[in-house]
Amino acid sequence: MYSSVNTIWVLLGAAMVFFMQAGFSMCEAGFTRAKNTGNILMKNLMDFCIGTPAFWLIGFGLMFGAGNGIIGWFDPTIQANYDHILPAGVPLWAYVIFQTVFCATSATIVSGAMAERTKFSAYCIYSAAISLIIYPISGHWIWGGGWLSELGFHDFAGSTAVHMVGGVCALIGAKILGPRIGKYGKDGKPRAILGHDLAIAALGVFILWFCWFGFNGCSTVAMDSDAAIESASLIFVNTNLCAAVACCTTLVFTWARYKKPDVSMTYNAALAGLVGITAGCDMVSPLGAAIMGLIFGIVIVLAVEFFDRKAKIDDPVGAISVHGVCGALGTILTGLFSTSEGLFYGHGVRFLGIQLFGVLVVAAYVAVIITAVFKLLQHTIGLRCSAEEEISGLDISEHGLVSAYADFMPSVEAGTGIISDLENTGSADAEDYASQVTGSVHPDEAVPVEVRSAPLTAASDTGLHFTKIDIVMKQARFEQLRQALSQIGVTGMTVTNVMGCGMQKGAPEYYRGVPVEMNLLPKIEVEIVVCKVPVDRVIETAKKVLYTGHIGDGKIFVYGVQNVIKVRTGEEGYDALQDDN
Amino acid sequence: MYSSVNTIWVLLGAAMVFFMQAGFSMCEAGFTRAKNTGNILMKNLMDFCIGTPAFWLIGFGLMFGAGNGIIGWFDPTIQANYDHILPAGVPLWAYVIFQTVFCATSATIVSGAMAERTKFSAYCIYSAAISLIIYPISGHWIWGGGWLSELGFHDFAGSTAVHMVGGVCALIGAKILGPRIGKYGKDGKPRAILGHDLAIAALGVFILWFCWFGFNGCSTVAMDSDAAIESASLIFVNTNLCAAVACCTTLVFTWARYKKPDVSMTYNAALAGLVGITAGCDMVSPLGAAIMGLIFGIVIVLAVEFFDRKAKIDDPVGAISVHGVCGALGTILTGLFSTSEGLFYGHGVRFLGIQLFGVLVVAAYVAVIITAVFKLLQHTIGLRCSAEEEISGLDISEHGLVSAYADFMPSVEAGTGIISDLENTGSADAEDYASQVTGSVHPDEAVPVEVRSAPLTAASDTGLHFTKIDIVMKQARFEQLRQALSQIGVTGMTVTNVMGCGMQKGAPEYYRGVPVEMNLLPKIEVEIVVCKVPVDRVIETAKKVLYTGHIGDGKIFVYGVQNVIKVRTGEEGYDALQDDN
Amino acid sequence: MYSSVNTIWVLLGAAMVFFMQAGFSMCEAGFTRAKNTGNILMKNLMDFCIGTPAFWLIGFGLMFGAGNGIIGWFDPTIQANYDHILPAGVPLWAYVIFQTVFCATSATIVSGAMAERTKFSAYCIYSAAISLIIYPISGHWIWGGGWLSELGFHDFAGSTAVHMVGGVCALIGAKILGPRIGKYGKDGKPRAILGHDLAIAALGVFILWFCWFGFNGCSTVAMDSDAAIESASLIFVNTNLCAAVACCTTLVFTWARYKKPDVSMTYNAALAGLVGITAGCDMVSPLGAAIMGLIFGIVIVLAVEFFDRKAKIDDPVGAISVHGVCGALGTILTGLFSTSEGLFYGHGVRFLGIQLFGVLVVAAYVAVIITAVFKLLQHTIGLRCSAEEEISGLDISEHGLVSAYADFMPSVEAGTGIISDLENTGSADAEDYASQVTGSVHPDEAVPVEVRSAPLTAASDTGLHFTKIDIVMKQARFEQLRQALSQIGVTGMTVTNVMGCGMQKGAPEYYRGVPVEMNLLPKIEVEIVVCKVPVDRVIETAKKVLYTGHIGDGKIFVYGVQNVIKVRTGEEGYDALQDDN
Repeated sequence: MYSSVNTIWVLLGAAMVFFMQAGFSMCEAGFTRAKNTGNILMKNLMDFCIGTPAFWLIGFGLMFGAGNGIIGWFDPTIQANYDHILPAGVPLWAYVIFQTVFCATSATIVSGAMAERTKFSAYCIYSAAISLIIYPISGHWIWGGGWLSELGFHDFAGSTAVHMVGGVCALIGAKILGPRIGKYGKDGKPRAILGHDLAIAALGVFILWFCWFGFNGCSTVAMDSDAAIESASLIFVNTNLCAAVACCTTLVFTWARYKKPDVSMTYNAALAGLVGITAGCDMVSPLGAAIMGLIFGIVIVLAVEFFDRKAKIDDPVGAISVHGVCGALGTILTGLFSTSEGLFYGHGVRFLGIQLFGVLVVAAYVAVIITAVFKLLQHTIGLRCSAEEEISGLDISEHGLVSAYADFMPSVEAGTGIISDLENTGSADAEDYASQVTGSVHPDEAVPVEVRSAPLTAASDTGLHFTKIDIVMKQARFEQLRQALSQIGVTGMTVTNVMGCGMQKGAPEYYRGVPVEMNLLPKIEVEIVVCKVPVDRVIETAKKVLYTGHIGDGKIFVYGVQNVIKVRTGEEGYDALQDDN
Repeated sequence: MYSSVNTIWVLLGAAMVFFMQAGFSMCEAGFTRAKNTGNILMKNLMDFCIGTPAFWLIGFGLMFGAGNGIIGWFDPTIQANYDHILPAGVPLWAYVIFQTVFCATSATIVSGAMAERTKFSAYCIYSAAISLIIYPISGHWIWGGGWLSELGFHDFAGSTAVHMVGGVCALIGAKILGPRIGKYGKDGKPRAILGHDLAIAALGVFILWFCWFGFNGCSTVAMDSDAAIESASLIFVNTNLCAAVACCTTLVFTWARYKKPDVSMTYNAALAGLVGITAGCDMVSPLGAAIMGLIFGIVIVLAVEFFDRKAKIDDPVGAISVHGVCGALGTILTGLFSTSEGLFYGHGVRFLGIQLFGVLVVAAYVAVIITAVFKLLQHTIGLRCSAEEEISGLDISEHGLVSAYADFMPSVEAGTGIISDLENTGSADAEDYASQVTGSVHPDEAVPVEVRSAPLTAASDTGLHFTKIDIVMKQARFEQLRQALSQIGVTGMTVTNVMGCGMQKGAPEYYRGVPVEMNLLPKIEVEIVVCKVPVDRVIETAKKVLYTGHIGDGKIFVYGVQNVIKVRTGEEGYDALQDDN
Repeated sequence: MYSSVNTIWVLLGAAMVFFMQAGFSMCEAGFTRAKNTGNILMKNLMDFCIGTPAFWLIGFGLMFGAGNGIIGWFDPTIQANYDHILPAGVPLWAYVIFQTVFCATSATIVSGAMAERTKFSAYCIYSAAISLIIYPISGHWIWGGGWLSELGFHDFAGSTAVHMVGGVCALIGAKILGPRIGKYGKDGKPRAILGHDLAIAALGVFILWFCWFGFNGCSTVAMDSDAAIESASLIFVNTNLCAAVACCTTLVFTWARYKKPDVSMTYNAALAGLVGITAGCDMVSPLGAAIMGLIFGIVIVLAVEFFDRKAKIDDPVGAISVHGVCGALGTILTGLFSTSEGLFYGHGVRFLGIQLFGVLVVAAYVAVIITAVFKLLQHTIGLRCSAEEEISGLDISEHGLVSAYADFMPSVEAGTGIISDLENTGSADAEDYASQVTGSVHPDEAVPVEVRSAPLTAASDTGLHFTKIDIVMKQARFEQLRQALSQIGVTGMTVTNVMGCGMQKGAPEYYRGVPVEMNLLPKIEVEIVVCKVPVDRVIETAKKVLYTGHIGDGKIFVYGVQNVIKVRTGEEGYDALQDDN
């Protein structure tokens, strides 16, 4: 006799925890560089896709088989009986899918810390190792009826079992890999390597927060008793409150520390709070959850700084700090804040000691095994891609993907070959259009332009001189310049986004606590060609408009021009400059 | 004795309404400019993160405490008994989280209307004020057992309590702030300021629509009776139908009005329909919902136009029209369309009158308080950022964030320092690569290039002349030009995306009803340097290919070149042009 | 007497299946070009918004009315009694919303295959036709008590009823439309047309996968019996496992076939597995689901290649292969893998035959009707937009939308008019700032710059020569060049992202099995103007730094310069080059 509400609850949780994969993908893609986006997306997809059959084939049995206190049993494709461990009223397959998505969460954490430099084939293999063996064994200790759970270790929804396991793998992996090229200067100081899309990174965090209601709330795996109903309700409040307070804390803390509130660190703090509350979300009061949020909000900043500056372990998305540090800390703090067993509520140090012990044992276990796995990979197929692959980006080197934004960025490329194939579309209209323009493709055929075979020197023969004036300037003043030039008779110009390179700016800006180098500043370059309008007039006008007296007002370059031709009219020289662009 | 199904329903609703934060974030980020993206994301995160503890500390007690008809009670951290107001079978904490996410929705609405110019510190403070006091008090009147609910005012899921409250704050805030710089011309006419990413804005709308099933549907806060089950089912249909019909209506209406169907306005219409149906979604028939959708689809367009053109209140995302206008209107229309109490179903004007009265009272109350809050902020820490901060963007000025798309846009910057630090990666391969290229970093060391110290004039001494031909042209013809040039022997060229500046285009395009100025048009600039190929031949070929006879065919500039060097071979002059790029 | 759990399950499913619209939108937008993004988003919104009232007005009655075996009944706005078909304990309106979102899924599939070239008005009309008639009639046969269901045809959640119906419409539509301009070369070979944002495309796939738990799992439309509970649990496992195995298979298969694992194809494989398992997810074992995943993972690659290369039907997102082919195949494979009726489990060929027959009949029916609809449209309002509209992009031609990323891409444009209107903001601070800078807008007023009316030839009169050195080079070496130039005294430079055009690269990269042409390669152009620093020194330094001996090392161009002016100081000539940019 199954329970409808329990199973609905478990399946709802499974769907939501699955959706965390989207959150992790967006978060990691956004916080890393555009040239590795396809690779990050692929890793996030594949760790789930490899983890799912791996957990079905071996992992679930190892984790939940009755076996002994250390390990479950070997039960390929889950054929055995698991009544000893199934939640009341929940069918085996509902529990299998629920546990599968938790396992995959653990695996996916690693990809963020090892992003932008790990060989894809190696990633697929160690990702399988995590789902096949590493996660299931410590999971057995904690949730599968193993020795840690016997001891009284409490990790409600996986601060340790899921997040710290992933975080420790991330730490070892990032350490063995070494930092990304360019992360540390010759002086050993870290450099900020900025991500490419904060909007999708933020979306990722919101998705993760949303799914965490399933991750923690549905981990009651029951809704058929008053106790379970009350517990789920409290868990929702605690989970949300801890994350919210962590964000507020980090906001204030980074504001004080870096002078300005750090966007990406504050988003990280949400995850820190969520990870941290996960172990004890059923045991603490809302007040306890809020205080824990305060702690996580400080610790996440210090942990990110520690790994970045002191340990010099390059973790592009902060996964080690979020999942490893806050996962461990949250489990331990449960020993303090648990209202039923915690030290702060007068229940002595025994429970705290067990929590601390459990965290250390699991961390040590995971560290040993994953080190072996990574070392093995490093000395066989290799763990890190080559420097050239890393610099050109993993998208092109690992996946032959020009860019995850191929059509977006080099907008010219997309046009390649477009017109010359109009006749192949099978559309009569396209063919008409094609034949209309094809005439001009072959320069030897008759064309509607009357080409004057004027000698090149025609223009200069008239005694007129053309001058090109190049203005490299700040973007903000462009509209003023355009209007001022228009008033003196200059209407045509070509504008390009460029980067101007000069001295360092004064006060540095910080990104996650690391100063951002900006010796290439965005500028625009305005190119003007004039004939009758005096060059001096143009220069004087530009100087007036652009002058502020501050560094970076810009520069003006003057060049000679031999001739100008306007395509539409065939006019050359002065006439070609009168216009419509 | 709690109800499993009621609590599942309430908690599901809480998670979904939380997820609206993602929807609002994406929607607002997408509809505003890239330079403010980090700031918008931060505001959307922080209003939730500040609102959560604020509502826990004070708001919930003020809203749901028994108190009196005007206000609840002061109950920090929710310690009192709320049995008088709790839905049957739902634990207190489930109800707390459910109400918390509704409160945060109200707060987050404001950020859209005040986007791109509000000081971040001021935003945090007024956001706290909304969650602490403003929303809870009117909420008490409507949902907390207060005087409006006693009167028979019906606002099922919050067209007024949540959306109009947010919308009125948005209206007052946007009015006090003033429009963004550049929004209105000297002639007072509005200008279109286009957003930066319609895809994520659309995603935001889809997320909101999805979550609205939780917002409205789960507001039955019960699923344990036939009445509740039937009501939730009807609510799902009404919510969906009203939004869908609103979109169809706006599609047709903008098509007729602006000649083309407006994408962003139609997406806005979905939200208009969702907000509008929220008050009466349990009381109207599907037919009524469809007719209401028709009304909202027209009203949203007119409202956006009104605030933009007549009231000259700059609301970047249309929040005032969507949440304020349609929230109020939806509440009032419930007085007409309610099948059990509405005027159209023969139940007289009493209910309609109460709805109208409730809307006015709440609007007036909110307007007064929020005006006080904003004025206080304006005269203390300031409400609006400085003009310089606004122009440079809030990302850099408020958060020291170079750009939310830092690696994406200035793709050169990401390369800064990459190679020179290969030796710091701890990777043997990277070090090899580094030492291989480092040789060439120091110009005084021996390098594999045999540098010919030929005098600069070498090339011209041979009697050969180099000429640079610059072609500024439409993107669409590029492939044809490349092929045609290839046929006359020109293979190497450099292509740049530029903006050409000329006269205005003929027929303007509209963005949300406002004409879009386009005096900078995207072009490409093709740079060719030739020696033996006659310059005239190149020019003639380009003219033939590019000619269409329409304005914008492009221009050709001719410059002298002193020398050309090919790096790989060290060749200079003519030989350097034969090639592979 | 309704069932709480059944209705919760159905409504949860409805919300999740609705959210698929977000998944389809992101997926299609990401896999197509930026110039059509607004149009794709609009189509995805409108097919749902048109489909919803269409299904309410006519479709639901045709599909679920008792009628006869061929068709239901005509029941505008669903007024009749549907007790004969309603799931036990589920109210009519819950079932209506559940079926509405399934119908809309079918309609939305088509937009992907017909993307980037279909007239928007025509799209709206055929989208209505699908929801009004096509989908409801075959749906009646399968799910509405019609003749196919009488025969024993099994399509649990819609591999045929939803996906194949959409896929067949997509196939016919894409065939009639013809390929996008530029898709096939003159040699008839397909060309890769890359999408513009793989990150949102991947997000779309994750959203779809998440929602598929609702699509398949909630299609039990019951959770009140042990059978339903067990079935839903198994469905979750099967759905997830099949998709995961399909991805693993495609990963390996494309790795072997194209030398590198293809990102977008692997993401497609997830959808192929999900579509394929949908028909039989309640009837197969997890092992069966895994084997089916293996099949779909191979078939999707071959199908995409077939339509691209052999059939020459241009399907930008692979919708025909995913929904059409895998939908049909999944339905048929159910006849093999069903544990209760399948051939592989010893139940003979009868069930397999019925499955095969049902698929063929439905495909034939849909093909006939949709061909009529498309042909009718083609010969009346037209189905395909004009070639000019297609080349310029549907955003601008259909919606007057400059770009879905308008502010993002041409970052200069956003600045237009900004400063000159500071006085219109109503902000005192902005007005101050405006008046401060306005002075310099009018060149005839007094300005703080002392303009020296030096003759243009001043600089050259001093006997100094200025030279501009243009270096077109690979991005990766930029930092080295900057440092090396700095050592010889060159600090100022202007850097632009350009595209260099030369010969083809050696080994091609593949995108979904099609070689990607890259004769425009990203480069950067560094512009330096020097005076006292010898030109030869700069050239030698650049040559040393840039030399690798490989094709693409870059080129250096030397030009004469007439003068240089620094705006901040008014310095000209040599002094203007000393600096800070």
